[in-house]
Amino acid sequence: MQASKRQVYFLSNGTAITAETLGMSLLAQFPDHHFETHTVPFVDTPEKVRVVSDEINRCGDDAKQLPIVICTMADPDLMKIVTQTKALVIDPFGEILPRMENLLASQHHQPGQSHRTVNQTIYESRIDAIDYAMAHDDGSRTQTYDQADIILIGVSRSGKTPSCLFLALQFGIKAANYPITEEDMESEGLPEPVRPFTERLYGLTTDLDRLVTIRQARRPNSRYASLKQCRYELRAVEQMYLRHHINHINTSQMSVEEISARIIRDNGLHRIELP
Amino acid sequence: MQASKRQVYFLSNGTAITAETLGMSLLAQFPDHHFETHTVPFVDTPEKVRVVSDEINRCGDDAKQLPIVICTMADPDLMKIVTQTKALVIDPFGEILPRMENLLASQHHQPGQSHRTVNQTIYESRIDAIDYAMAHDDGSRTQTYDQADIILIGVSRSGKTPSCLFLALQFGIKAANYPITEEDMESEGLPEPVRPFTERLYGLTTDLDRLVTIRQARRPNSRYASLKQCRYELRAVEQMYLRHHINHINTSQMSVEEISARIIRDNGLHRIELP
Repeated sequence: MQASKRQVYFLSNGTAITAETLGMSLLAQFPDHHFETHTVPFVDTPEKVRVVSDEINRCGDDAKQLPIVICTMADPDLMKIVTQTKALVIDPFGEILPRMENLLASQHHQPGQSHRTVNQTIYESRIDAIDYAMAHDDGSRTQTYDQADIILIGVSRSGKTPSCLFLALQFGIKAANYPITEEDMESEGLPEPVRPFTERLYGLTTDLDRLVTIRQARRPNSRYASLKQCRYELRAVEQMYLRHHINHINTSQMSVEEISARIIRDNGLHRIELP
Repeated sequence: MQASKRQVYFLSNGTAITAETLGMSLLAQFPDHHFETHTVPFVDTPEKVRVVSDEINRCGDDAKQLPIVICTMADPDLMKIVTQTKALVIDPFGEILPRMENLLASQHHQPGQSHRTVNQTIYESRIDAIDYAMAHDDGSRTQTYDQADIILIGVSRSGKTPSCLFLALQFGIKAANYPITEEDMESEGLPEPVRPFTERLYGLTTDLDRLVTIRQARRPNSRYASLKQCRYELRAVEQMYLRHHINHINTSQMSVEEISARIIRDNGLHRIELP
């Protein structure tokens, strides 16, 4: 355990999303350490690199601890300046690209183009999926459910909306969501708007204490947030899932990323490539 | 240039988001090559690894081309099985973790926890931001603009909604968006609902041909999608940005990731750490 937080920088000449995503995964392997992270995107000239490098040096001197720099600068000239920083400089590209160049018998030429260039077809699919998710949130526009790739169902606050948005933004998947109401719960059948689409339904559920906590934060001391009501609703939807053989997951311990990845896998959904 | 597409696999015992993000960045360095990518998440037992490994071997035999496997399996036992696949196996963790362990004088213990464990505070911030973005899309609920971290303005289809959603989902930033209407354009001043928040405004604009294309796809041959109307609107908002000294960017060539990263940088926004 460190006395102070170790400073960690994610640098890139682009958005720095790759450096940050990889970096956060690496830091997660050291749960007993405390890190303070800084994401610095668009460091795309030697001058900008020097400014950031100076700042990291100062910061390391102040903290009396070597900072960590994770840098996906694909331009070797810029990378060379970064490596002069007084820090543990990690260059994932530098260690991997030569092996890929060797396999592909190719020199790479266009540094930092990921998350930047816009492929129009992919862009359109993504925007269409976002439009779809926005228009089909929370039981809206059930008459166009036939266009959905997937329809999430579940009680209020089980994670439907964030999952639909993530599926759209990250994967270009058209996801609708339909909240199971008390009226729906009192019936043996599936709610009428989703009934024609049984094979596209996917159920979310969550732990009782978690649901109570989330609902209490939003409507304190309401019937909606009461233990009794939450228990009733969760039991009712879980019975509904079992009765109608609807695939479902408990989202309590899951991030939006994990929920979405499982939905894609469990339903064999086709997704666009990331930009 | 390859005759057939090179097969590329992103494997992980978790969501595989890290493997995929890093992998796509690496592939983007080889724009002259064609790749077919496969993301395989939750490969978390030796049996599952073997099944995937067999599939990759078969696929490589059929294509008569060595596949590429990018694998962020943090569990060394699972990784060992992956490395026996007939492929160029890239293990970014394997090359980096030892250096970090050395610096931190620590053994890592919790493989694959990123994108999985849910920090409650971060989770709440993120969900609050998503709720905020959904409620404050397209000029809704302007009476609670005081809670916004940022308010995006621009003409219809300049990228406001996807950017707000991405800022919320990825960074926990509360972003509202307000569409500049024709009525707003005819006035010299800023639209009344955003006027008290000048320092939180950020303008989006786009290229004329791009706007026409996007609008035509949605409402073909409408006044809304006409060259004349699009030109008028873009000129009007750009003049508005200049007149009122509002920071702005042209989103035409940018992915949602890049727009969001620039908004954060240009406005010095505070963001949550990724899960």
